[in-house]
Amino acid sequence: MNDTNVTIDDLPVRDELRGKSPYGAPQLDVPVRLNTNENPYPLPEPLVERIAERVREAARHLNRYPDRDAVELRAGLAAYLTKTGGHPVGVENVWAANGSNEVIQQLLQTFGGPGRTAIGFEPSYSMHGLIARGTGTGWFSGPRGEDFTIDLPAAEKAIAEHRPDVVFVTTPNNPTGTAVPAETVLALYEAAQAARPSMVVVDEAYIEFSHGDSLLPLIEGRPNLVVSRTMSKAFGAAGLRLGYLAAHPAVVDAVQLVRLPYHLSAVTQATALAALEHTDTLLKYVEQLKRERDRLVAELRALGYDVTESDANFVQFGTFADSHVVWQKILDRGVLVRDNGVPGRLRVTAGTPAENDAFLDAVGELVSYVGATPTPPKEQST
Amino acid sequence: MNDTNVTIDDLPVRDELRGKSPYGAPQLDVPVRLNTNENPYPLPEPLVERIAERVREAARHLNRYPDRDAVELRAGLAAYLTKTGGHPVGVENVWAANGSNEVIQQLLQTFGGPGRTAIGFEPSYSMHGLIARGTGTGWFSGPRGEDFTIDLPAAEKAIAEHRPDVVFVTTPNNPTGTAVPAETVLALYEAAQAARPSMVVVDEAYIEFSHGDSLLPLIEGRPNLVVSRTMSKAFGAAGLRLGYLAAHPAVVDAVQLVRLPYHLSAVTQATALAALEHTDTLLKYVEQLKRERDRLVAELRALGYDVTESDANFVQFGTFADSHVVWQKILDRGVLVRDNGVPGRLRVTAGTPAENDAFLDAVGELVSYVGATPTPPKEQST
Repeated sequence: MNDTNVTIDDLPVRDELRGKSPYGAPQLDVPVRLNTNENPYPLPEPLVERIAERVREAARHLNRYPDRDAVELRAGLAAYLTKTGGHPVGVENVWAANGSNEVIQQLLQTFGGPGRTAIGFEPSYSMHGLIARGTGTGWFSGPRGEDFTIDLPAAEKAIAEHRPDVVFVTTPNNPTGTAVPAETVLALYEAAQAARPSMVVVDEAYIEFSHGDSLLPLIEGRPNLVVSRTMSKAFGAAGLRLGYLAAHPAVVDAVQLVRLPYHLSAVTQATALAALEHTDTLLKYVEQLKRERDRLVAELRALGYDVTESDANFVQFGTFADSHVVWQKILDRGVLVRDNGVPGRLRVTAGTPAENDAFLDAVGELVSYVGATPTPPKEQST
Repeated sequence: MNDTNVTIDDLPVRDELRGKSPYGAPQLDVPVRLNTNENPYPLPEPLVERIAERVREAARHLNRYPDRDAVELRAGLAAYLTKTGGHPVGVENVWAANGSNEVIQQLLQTFGGPGRTAIGFEPSYSMHGLIARGTGTGWFSGPRGEDFTIDLPAAEKAIAEHRPDVVFVTTPNNPTGTAVPAETVLALYEAAQAARPSMVVVDEAYIEFSHGDSLLPLIEGRPNLVVSRTMSKAFGAAGLRLGYLAAHPAVVDAVQLVRLPYHLSAVTQATALAALEHTDTLLKYVEQLKRERDRLVAELRALGYDVTESDANFVQFGTFADSHVVWQKILDRGVLVRDNGVPGRLRVTAGTPAENDAFLDAVGELVSYVGATPTPPKEQST
């Protein structure tokens, strides 16, 4: 019935989409999945019950549109940030959307878009560049140093040269793992403002796993600075798709000019509120994952791998003459890690102790593959 | 702590957003809310329990990303369309997103965007134009006849003149209520293809309430035709935010080039699947609402109002010298209807029999306000 001779190429899609593939890591069914930085611990059963309870209540009003401004949820997120982020924020400082991807999309629709540009320091979270392109925002790839940290003089030079409207700083950085010091972010903020009035988006998706503190206090007195967050990682709720930001209330007002009305469903709001009630338990899992992350770093180094400093729930390791060959060899041993296209490196998510053991056993057999010649870029990061 | 001297105007927002307000109807707390075309019937309790059950199960895996391709849900929606839409479709024909607004946004990112244009025949669902602007797509407002139906020769002329990349046809139309005949849609499709290769989006958000049939069969042999749908109205699930489309599989492939990865949460997928299990019960509510809608039309006419033919769960009525004054007078009587900015008209959603009685009592007292002079546009439609 569907004419199979018709393909995307026969449709009037935008030119820049022609020949492209949808973004996303392979979702393969293997025993140990350490490829998308998911939290390996299922939500505790009391929280599962609480979610069912809150969603049941929300379902009784599901014929009505949800709270368009998600006030109760934003207040809950503000309370969490106030408690853990080192800076008091209120509901007026917080905005939430379907995953931090949608938060970033809304920010780029508001402050980027056609005729405007954004910059990120790569390798980094590749959705920043992809969402920039999806919103018609020009994209500049800024530099990093050899150790994958931001090379501040080079970064300042790139900002002065390109004068971007939006600057992305991912801390801890994904896929490399290292946190960015506050002084670096402040220097980038100053450089950005010196070039033109511009927004600096500090993507803290993995901040709960960091050895250091959140940069949330930097929003004080800096209305052009935004901190973005997610419940996908520390809250163990990747399936929930709940991202949020903290910033000056004017930023929260501004993104409401572009958000789709009623973008956040009543079931999403109810589920996120239930998860916030169990913050203390979920943060205990974070402590466990930090210990496992540190163990991965130590054991990989003991095996002879080159390991990037990690403040996240994942670890970048190498180096390999051909990282994709090694990725496949690890997969052959039942463990799925990620080839983010960083030459000579792979990324592994910290799993349960047993999952990490399985991974370490696999790479223990592969130390002969450790080499120095970088491979060409292949894939992107989630 | 938040510097209250800083406002949106101090931020580097895009020029076209300056001075704008967020879209959305006032969410007022009044006894009878007939303003946003919600279904007045709460979901039946067995369905509420089934939602809690399915979400509980989904919550046990919430630490993992959701099925990025939402295959089970799309298969369920395809089965529903096959059963009710007069045309067999499979999972490969269906795509789903967070509300039909996100479906439309994805379509415009794929087929519209900077340097491209779209057209709608207004007054119609104003989010078409707003999302066009939000995606950098140029927007043309096409004409309607005096009875608010599409004036085909004038519409064909507008298409030939503007050569849009995307054509929106809302049937039944919102906020006016009348369905568009298949012949009209086919003529617009031919006119659009004659002007340039372009996509025609048939927005059937309210089709389950129509006296006529879905235009779903028109997708056969027309890969540039898309039918968009929602679970907000007939399924009584406005709070769920689940929109979907049916089209040639190539269209489904194409929108995946712009969708944010994992855009549809596991709780949304679980809730929608539960609702699909209860389709037969929910469609009985639709039959009841159609009877109430027909009663509203008849009784408003009997009172002397001018009423537009309705195939939806709402009714447009007038005419008033100043519709906003009448809107306020109805509100003073505890009933919230909608002023969509159509000169001299208001829109009322079909509620429960008791709600409709309350509305009819209110407007029965206001027949003296029926006049003929149109008011200037004020607001938009949901």
